[in-house]
Amino acid sequence: MDLWLIGIGTGNPEHVTLEAQRALREAAVILVPRKGPDKSDLAGLRHRIIRDAGAEGQIVEFDYPTRDPAIPYKQRVRAWHDEIARRWTAALSDVAPAGAVALLVWGDPSLYDSTLRIASRLSPAPAIKVVPGITALQALTAAHGLTFNTLAGAVTVTTGRRLREHGWPERTETLIVMLDGECSFQTLGRDDLHIWWGAYLGMPEQILDHGPLAEAAPRIIETRAAARAAHGWIMDTYLLRPKGLE
Amino acid sequence: MDLWLIGIGTGNPEHVTLEAQRALREAAVILVPRKGPDKSDLAGLRHRIIRDAGAEGQIVEFDYPTRDPAIPYKQRVRAWHDEIARRWTAALSDVAPAGAVALLVWGDPSLYDSTLRIASRLSPAPAIKVVPGITALQALTAAHGLTFNTLAGAVTVTTGRRLREHGWPERTETLIVMLDGECSFQTLGRDDLHIWWGAYLGMPEQILDHGPLAEAAPRIIETRAAARAAHGWIMDTYLLRPKGLE
Ligand SMILES: C[S@@+](CC[C@H](N)C(=O)[O-])C[C@H]1O[C@@H](n2cnc3c(N)ncnc32)[C@H](O)[C@@H]1O
Ligand SMILES: C[S@@+](CC[C@H](N)C(=O)[O-])C[C@H]1O[C@@H](n2cnc3c(N)ncnc32)[C@H](O)[C@@H]1O
Repeated sequence: MDLWLIGIGTGNPEHVTLEAQRALREAAVILVPRKGPDKSDLAGLRHRIIRDAGAEGQIVEFDYPTRDPAIPYKQRVRAWHDEIARRWTAALSDVAPAGAVALLVWGDPSLYDSTLRIASRLSPAPAIKVVPGITALQALTAAHGLTFNTLAGAVTVTTGRRLREHGWPERTETLIVMLDGECSFQTLGRDDLHIWWGAYLGMPEQILDHGPLAEAAPRIIETRAAARAAHGWIMDTYLLRPKGLE
Repeated sequence: MDLWLIGIGTGNPEHVTLEAQRALREAAVILVPRKGPDKSDLAGLRHRIIRDAGAEGQIVEFDYPTRDPAIPYKQRVRAWHDEIARRWTAALSDVAPAGAVALLVWGDPSLYDSTLRIASRLSPAPAIKVVPGITALQALTAAHGLTFNTLAGAVTVTTGRRLREHGWPERTETLIVMLDGECSFQTLGRDDLHIWWGAYLGMPEQILDHGPLAEAAPRIIETRAAARAAHGWIMDTYLLRPKGLE
C-alpha cells in the first residue's frame, strides 16, 4: 500500500501547498476521522480542503478510540497508537487498494503528531510519502512578524510538560512551547523574559498577545481560560526569549 | 508602506502555499534580487513561482552587497543588513508606492533569515505581513519520513558554528543543524547517534543519506564535497538523534 501523509497547515485553508493539493487529487482513497477526540479536529476544515483541491478519491471514515487515563503516559499513548492502526486497517479492508491512500495531518506530519508512529505499526508496511505542511511554529512567528531564532542563536522546541519538569534549557536563546494545557510559562520564575503567545493561529478566531512575561502572563491565563470556555477547545503555542536579544 | 515577506519553501515550486500565491497576485510591486550572493539563490525558481502565481505586479530588482570578511561576524552581518536596507529603499524610491511591496523569502521568513531584521531598519517603518512557508526542517523530515521530535521529547535547532562550540545541548533528544559548511557532526565524538542528512531538499538534485553517525559521517563528507564541486553550491541540513529513540 502507498500511504501519503499530507500536512494541511494549522487552520487557515490557504496554508495548503500546491504539493498537498496535487497529492489529494491523485489519491485513490482519503482516510478521514469521523470526528476527532474533540472539536479542535475541525472536520469542516478538512472537508473544505479536500473539496478545494478538487479531490475525487473515495472518502473512507474511521473513529478515533479514546485514551485510558488509568495507564501511565507513554504506555497509554502507545496503546492508543496500536488501536488507531487497527482501525485504519479495518477501514481500509473494505476498499480496493488500487492507488494511494491519503491522510490529512494537522500542521506538518513530523511535528508532535502521531501519524508517522501509527503508520509504522501497519502490516504489511506501507510505502510512506510525507508532504510537508505549515506548522504552528511558523503560524506563530508569522502572526507576530517575529524571528524564530536570534541572530546565529539556537532554538528549543518543547512541550508544556517538559518545561514544567526541566525549566529553561541551557544555552538556548529562544524556547517555543507546544502542547501546553497549563500555561506552564508561569513556573519559570525569571523576570528577563518576553513572551509571544498565539491561539487558534491562522483561523478567524486567532488571538495574539505579547509583552514582558511578568506583565503578560496573568493576561494570557485569563484570555486563554475565557476563549477555551467560549469555544469549547483551544490550541495555543508561545515563544519565550530574553529581553533585548534580536 | 506595506511590506509582505512571503515564504516560498526550499526549492520545490510546489512548496508554495495558496496564501503565498494570493499575496503575490495582490502585490503591486515584487522586489527581486538581481542575483543572489551565489547560485543557490536560484533566480529561475523565484521567477517561476511569480509566474505560476499569476502575479502581475511590477518587478523591481536590486543587487545584494558583498560582506566584508575583515569585520567580526555579528558586526559584519549587521553592516550587511544596513546596506541591504539602503538598497531596498533606493530600488523602491523609483516606484509609486500605491499598494504592497512583496519579497520572496527562501523557506520561511522566520528561520535563519535576515529579511525581518533588514525590514526593521527601514524608515519610515513599513507595516509588515509575513506569509509562512515550508522550511528546510520540514523538507528534511518529509524527505526521510522522519519525526521532528521523539515521543514527548524536545528538539533543538542550531547552527554548525554553535554545534562546534557547544556540542550536544543538554536534555535534547533531537538536534537539527542548519548553516553548516563544515560537516560539524564530525566534532561530536559520540558513538550512540544516528544522522539523517539531506542536501538540495525539495529540488531535482535532492540527495539523502542516513545511518549510524560513525558509519555515515565519512560517506556524507565525501558526497557533500563531490556535490558541491559538481553544482558550485550546496545547501544541506541534518537531524541527529540517539539510537533507539522513537
Ligand atoms: C498535537 S500537536 C500538532 C502540531 C502540528 N503537527 C503542527 O505542525 O503544528 C498540537 C499542538 O500544536 C499547537 N497548535 C497546532 N495548531 C495550532 C493553532 N492553530 N494555533 C495555536 N497552536 C496550535 C498547539 O501547541 C497544540 O497543543
Ligand atoms: C539562510 S538559511 C535559510 C533557511 C530558510 N529560511 C528555511 O526556512 O529553511 C539557509 C540554510 O537552510 C538550510 N536549507 C535551506 N534550503 C535547503 C535545502 N533545499 N536543502 C537543504 N538545506 C536547506 C541549509 O542548512 C542552509 O544552510
